[in-house]
Amino acid sequence: MGSLLSIYLAKRGYSVTVFERRGDMRQSGYEGGRSINLALSNRGIRALDEVDVANEIKKVTIPMHGRIMHNRQGELTFQPYGNEGQFINSVSRSALNIVLINKAEALGVEFKFDKRITHIDLDKTSLTVQSPESIVNSKQTQDYRLWTMDYIIGADGAFSAVRSAFQITDRFDYAQDYIDHGYKELHIPAGKAASFQLEKNALHIWPRESFMMIALPNPDGSFTCTLFFPFEGTPSFGQLKTDAEVSMFFESTFPDAVSLMPTLLEDYNTNPTSSLVTVRCYPWIKNNTLLIGDAAHALVPFFGQGMNAGFEDCRVLNQLLEIHFDDWTKVLPEFQQSRKINADAIAQLALDNFVEMRDLVADADFLLRKKIEARLHQLYPTRWIPLYSMVTFYDSMPYATALETGTKQKKIMDEVMKTSKIDRVWESLNFEEIVNKLK
Amino acid sequence: MGSLLSIYLAKRGYSVTVFERRGDMRQSGYEGGRSINLALSNRGIRALDEVDVANEIKKVTIPMHGRIMHNRQGELTFQPYGNEGQFINSVSRSALNIVLINKAEALGVEFKFDKRITHIDLDKTSLTVQSPESIVNSKQTQDYRLWTMDYIIGADGAFSAVRSAFQITDRFDYAQDYIDHGYKELHIPAGKAASFQLEKNALHIWPRESFMMIALPNPDGSFTCTLFFPFEGTPSFGQLKTDAEVSMFFESTFPDAVSLMPTLLEDYNTNPTSSLVTVRCYPWIKNNTLLIGDAAHALVPFFGQGMNAGFEDCRVLNQLLEIHFDDWTKVLPEFQQSRKINADAIAQLALDNFVEMRDLVADADFLLRKKIEARLHQLYPTRWIPLYSMVTFYDSMPYATALETGTKQKKIMDEVMKTSKIDRVWESLNFEEIVNKLK
Repeated sequence: MGSLLSIYLAKRGYSVTVFERRGDMRQSGYEGGRSINLALSNRGIRALDEVDVANEIKKVTIPMHGRIMHNRQGELTFQPYGNEGQFINSVSRSALNIVLINKAEALGVEFKFDKRITHIDLDKTSLTVQSPESIVNSKQTQDYRLWTMDYIIGADGAFSAVRSAFQITDRFDYAQDYIDHGYKELHIPAGKAASFQLEKNALHIWPRESFMMIALPNPDGSFTCTLFFPFEGTPSFGQLKTDAEVSMFFESTFPDAVSLMPTLLEDYNTNPTSSLVTVRCYPWIKNNTLLIGDAAHALVPFFGQGMNAGFEDCRVLNQLLEIHFDDWTKVLPEFQQSRKINADAIAQLALDNFVEMRDLVADADFLLRKKIEARLHQLYPTRWIPLYSMVTFYDSMPYATALETGTKQKKIMDEVMKTSKIDRVWESLNFEEIVNKLK
Repeated sequence: MGSLLSIYLAKRGYSVTVFERRGDMRQSGYEGGRSINLALSNRGIRALDEVDVANEIKKVTIPMHGRIMHNRQGELTFQPYGNEGQFINSVSRSALNIVLINKAEALGVEFKFDKRITHIDLDKTSLTVQSPESIVNSKQTQDYRLWTMDYIIGADGAFSAVRSAFQITDRFDYAQDYIDHGYKELHIPAGKAASFQLEKNALHIWPRESFMMIALPNPDGSFTCTLFFPFEGTPSFGQLKTDAEVSMFFESTFPDAVSLMPTLLEDYNTNPTSSLVTVRCYPWIKNNTLLIGDAAHALVPFFGQGMNAGFEDCRVLNQLLEIHFDDWTKVLPEFQQSRKINADAIAQLALDNFVEMRDLVADADFLLRKKIEARLHQLYPTRWIPLYSMVTFYDSMPYATALETGTKQKKIMDEVMKTSKIDRVWESLNFEEIVNKLK
């Protein structure tokens, strides 16, 4: 996020310094066990493409053409994400970041790793930056430095340090909402000769109504699995305490996956259980400081749009700088005003999609509904676009429009699904009449 | 809030220390210019009564039997709050606090004034308390002390320091929402011989649709006025810049009040413009630390229930301690569970009531609606209780029940008000039929 933004800004001729709390992952390697694999889709690709890094990044992605649902008997159902040729892309956070950091540095961006922001002065546009403790003359030393900037952009994620300075200003609206589920990363290794042990070009889901596991492919043949599971209740993280309980639960719940997970118990016990939060706030600007991406609008991951929305932020900010000849006094208010409604929309869509992924995709009625919508889209390609496609593939459509249209479509489809014996008669529906209702 | 709670706890035999950031108002006097006069009503009185301080406090209150609306021509309309003998009470924050602090000290509570909480450790139930800077041996000295407690109760208001420790814990849901209006305190002095220049036993409102001014009586014959006004737009605090603009605006908008406000310009320029926030959060407990009152659920002041809700919190907490023989492991979860829905309800009611106060009370249809509801209440005293009465006078009814019933009543009354020529025929409505709809 910060690295892509720094590329946009460096290309416009700005002198950019990026303060990063973690180390340089090009040296230290990626600290795993805590990251859902990222799903890069059209909005993200478009933002990468405008600064000419999309092609390089595509080299490390794996296309996923649809969802493969695994039921308790290990039976599989495939549901395409869109039309032929439409897909999303599995990519590791580290691979993506390394490409972006290298590109940014080549453009003159200065990265400062292992730096913690300890204070932001929003009136002076200054930040206090702490380096790791060091031993000088056998004394432990803390190194703080004050930087005064023309602009500060907080692209520092859901738990943004920049935002914490906003939080103590008057009239800052703020909400953080956790869902009842947490997540834990698990692992399916590659088979012999780096082979994929599940279908490679798909996102795998084990939908189990109140929870689910998913798996995304990695270039080395492995899959990164993520269990989304309640913190409390039956079943839940809180309930599975012993190795025996974990094993028994996985064997009865994900039988076809568990046979591919030799390190299940180790992963389960070692990897953290992380929480999932939606952050909404406003304003995103204070004087010359701006919040962007997850710092302004953190999402739950169920629409695979967190990174894509952040990258889109970068593209839109750049577009506004272009239009207004880098007059930030115009750009900043317009940015927050145009992006806020879209951020709210995708936050809502991401929450809604959890129910779809963990529950509905296992439902025959739901899959039929998707089939009917696919037919509507096939017949009226510009007049009926399924919600998933609007969000994922239509990178010129604002998220807010997608939400609004999707809500109307849902009402119409709710009616359609009430048709008697819909599963048998759906092909002879009056599709023209249905699509006309959307006007 | 903290002082009432300390009385409850001291009466149960607990050793209680109260850390107060401000000075002792019994010595320093009250810092005015920033406090809406408080409206004490039945829920608050009941909570005071259970620890035998209600009678002493009643000595410093002024009953207000209804609202008096002032239109732009200075014409007055009276609307009673409830039945004959039902009223709310104007009371100054300082008078109330002094009674409570004296009572608490008499019960052995230790007050530590001018103390700022700089850190809370929720795992150790400890707090770091800073005393004012002092000069020791001609050096400026900062005095921090660590206190470890059995329980910490954060009764420290909308901007709670205790809550800030909750905010950095995982899975803490939190929202702060500011409204577009701010407020400013103004003043109508007493007339000759401490006489009241407006009707004493009423809450005065100058409703002006998008904004309003109110005035509450003080025992010395003066009124404390509060202007609730948008920060931006037309008209707004942002727009009234010069003395001439302020004067002209007040003279055309509140002509009958302005003639009673000799210090208007001085008050307007000196007193701060403060913002109005709703805070919602959950959980309210972390280990042995509890949030209570505004710290857990800050409200906007338009239902006059902020203090009453906080006092009710104290009463309910005490009740639970009683029931569970001071077993805090049972009391704390039950407290938050039972109070959260009621806190959410009164937060919503308070926001809704702003529209009623600033706009609807000037509306003939609305006053007729209230008249019809008063008749329903008179005919069916237990079956139809107006929303305002449920919230204000029915101290055994949970706020959530009041909100739910009020919502149903509103729907019924919306229909009733559509009756043709309702203003002329309302007395011959079928009241039995109306009240039956509420079942």
